[in-house]
Amino acid sequence: MSDEGGEFREIAIVGLGLIGSSIARAVRAADAGVRLVAVDHSAAAAEAACGAGVVDAVAADVATAAATADLVILAVPVRALPCELQALLPLAAGLAARGTLVTDVGSTKASLLAAAASLFGAAPAWLVPGHPLAGSERSGWAAGKADLFAGRKVLLCPTAANAAALARVAAFWRRLGAKVEAMDADEHDGLLAQTSHLPHLLSFALVEALIDATPAARLFGHSGGGFRDMTRLAASDPVMWRDIALDNRDGVLRAIDLFASRLADLRADVAAGDGVALQRRFDRAKAARDAHLPPSEGNPS
Amino acid sequence: MSDEGGEFREIAIVGLGLIGSSIARAVRAADAGVRLVAVDHSAAAAEAACGAGVVDAVAADVATAAATADLVILAVPVRALPCELQALLPLAAGLAARGTLVTDVGSTKASLLAAAASLFGAAPAWLVPGHPLAGSERSGWAAGKADLFAGRKVLLCPTAANAAALARVAAFWRRLGAKVEAMDADEHDGLLAQTSHLPHLLSFALVEALIDATPAARLFGHSGGGFRDMTRLAASDPVMWRDIALDNRDGVLRAIDLFASRLADLRADVAAGDGVALQRRFDRAKAARDAHLPPSEGNPS
Repeated sequence: MSDEGGEFREIAIVGLGLIGSSIARAVRAADAGVRLVAVDHSAAAAEAACGAGVVDAVAADVATAAATADLVILAVPVRALPCELQALLPLAAGLAARGTLVTDVGSTKASLLAAAASLFGAAPAWLVPGHPLAGSERSGWAAGKADLFAGRKVLLCPTAANAAALARVAAFWRRLGAKVEAMDADEHDGLLAQTSHLPHLLSFALVEALIDATPAARLFGHSGGGFRDMTRLAASDPVMWRDIALDNRDGVLRAIDLFASRLADLRADVAAGDGVALQRRFDRAKAARDAHLPPSEGNPS
Repeated sequence: MSDEGGEFREIAIVGLGLIGSSIARAVRAADAGVRLVAVDHSAAAAEAACGAGVVDAVAADVATAAATADLVILAVPVRALPCELQALLPLAAGLAARGTLVTDVGSTKASLLAAAASLFGAAPAWLVPGHPLAGSERSGWAAGKADLFAGRKVLLCPTAANAAALARVAAFWRRLGAKVEAMDADEHDGLLAQTSHLPHLLSFALVEALIDATPAARLFGHSGGGFRDMTRLAASDPVMWRDIALDNRDGVLRAIDLFASRLADLRADVAAGDGVALQRRFDRAKAARDAHLPPSEGNPS
């Protein structure tokens, strides 16, 4: 982190959930001089953030906060993003004039750009859709961590108008230790449907399927680290994941179909007792996984 | 651990993979006086175990080791168990006369009892099918750990003849820190198909499906802790899991069908945009998971 501080002297964070509160903590740790203003529908969370000295002030809504901020970070669920953008509509000319930027942290990106196009005619130069690839099955203000983004990737979506703004938001994230990459919004949604949305849905479906067949206490009481890992994402926020599944419907459906088709092939091999085919599948999967992720220590299954 | 040592003064461990070598290390840590004899088709692993002072001697095969041992632990892949039992056939009368016990650590149990019934007419009084619910995607001698079984569950299968032997094997496992539970072999295979075999197959299928759609480097490079967790089991030993899937075919097929049917339901809800139904599914899964497993720390997705 540079001693000089970042270029943004007042940052508004809308939503003090896991990501928003982690950003607040990370900014505070990186740059003591910045003024942090929080907006949260829960007065308790905003007061806790103020009381802990992490944020300097609380604003009633995004429009109030955006009136004085240099950077507005929308850290609300994806389905709430259009409302937040709409609240900025009356301020749009002012934001552009003052050089204020707006970014978000949502897990889907095409719907945000669609909402922006609908509200503003086209994606505004001050809007930088973003997505830090960091999270947890835990949520809320208390779950936030100052180092949540250290070494993690943040994807930012270029538009026809936001090249300069994207560079400034990229610098912001790099100060928090993140690695920034530009990625087209549609491409983002297709890729994340595979690497994030599908895995979450599989984990939810695994738990739901099994507890209808076997009492949960018996399942969890006769399982090891493998089951723990494969069910961890099922502890994620149901509303957030409902919204992501609906918001990225096409990408999610394609990813489910991709998986379901492969699972049906694998089932056919088991039914046929085709050990050669099964081993070929498992060999390929293991080779890819081993090549890209180191074996975890102390994580017995 | 008691200072008096366990009742078994010579223990033969057949197979120095993750489980076998962890048993060897755990026994050595719990009871310095016991004589440990190893059998492994890899001379290198057996010599490493001797060289490290973990085992006292190496025997050429299970029959040689069983001739003098009080307890024989078959820690070989499930498909190799019938051959090991067959090798004990000429010694059967001697084992019974000397009170020598034989147990195993395989992930499936019905096929072992079927092989025993076929070889010995009925499951012998000295045979205690067992399964420690501890493992790792890592394998081999070097992956073994003395504390692998601490606090973990070990399932032992009662037969018409093995009540006394089961109590003695249970005491052995308790000395290594495990919690022992008796469970019928068919019940075991049905339950473990759900809590272990299915999760492994889903993880293999997830990786295999996605790497055919998207380059692996791109997938793993744009993912977080959730993808890491959901793909960890795909790093497991392909031969071992091929054998388990084939060995427990009926249980595995039923578990796959259970899951695939639920995934199809979930897909239909996404396709229909039915947020109420989706949230109900996710709420149920999260409630069950939260009730039985604490949220993991420091495991961001």
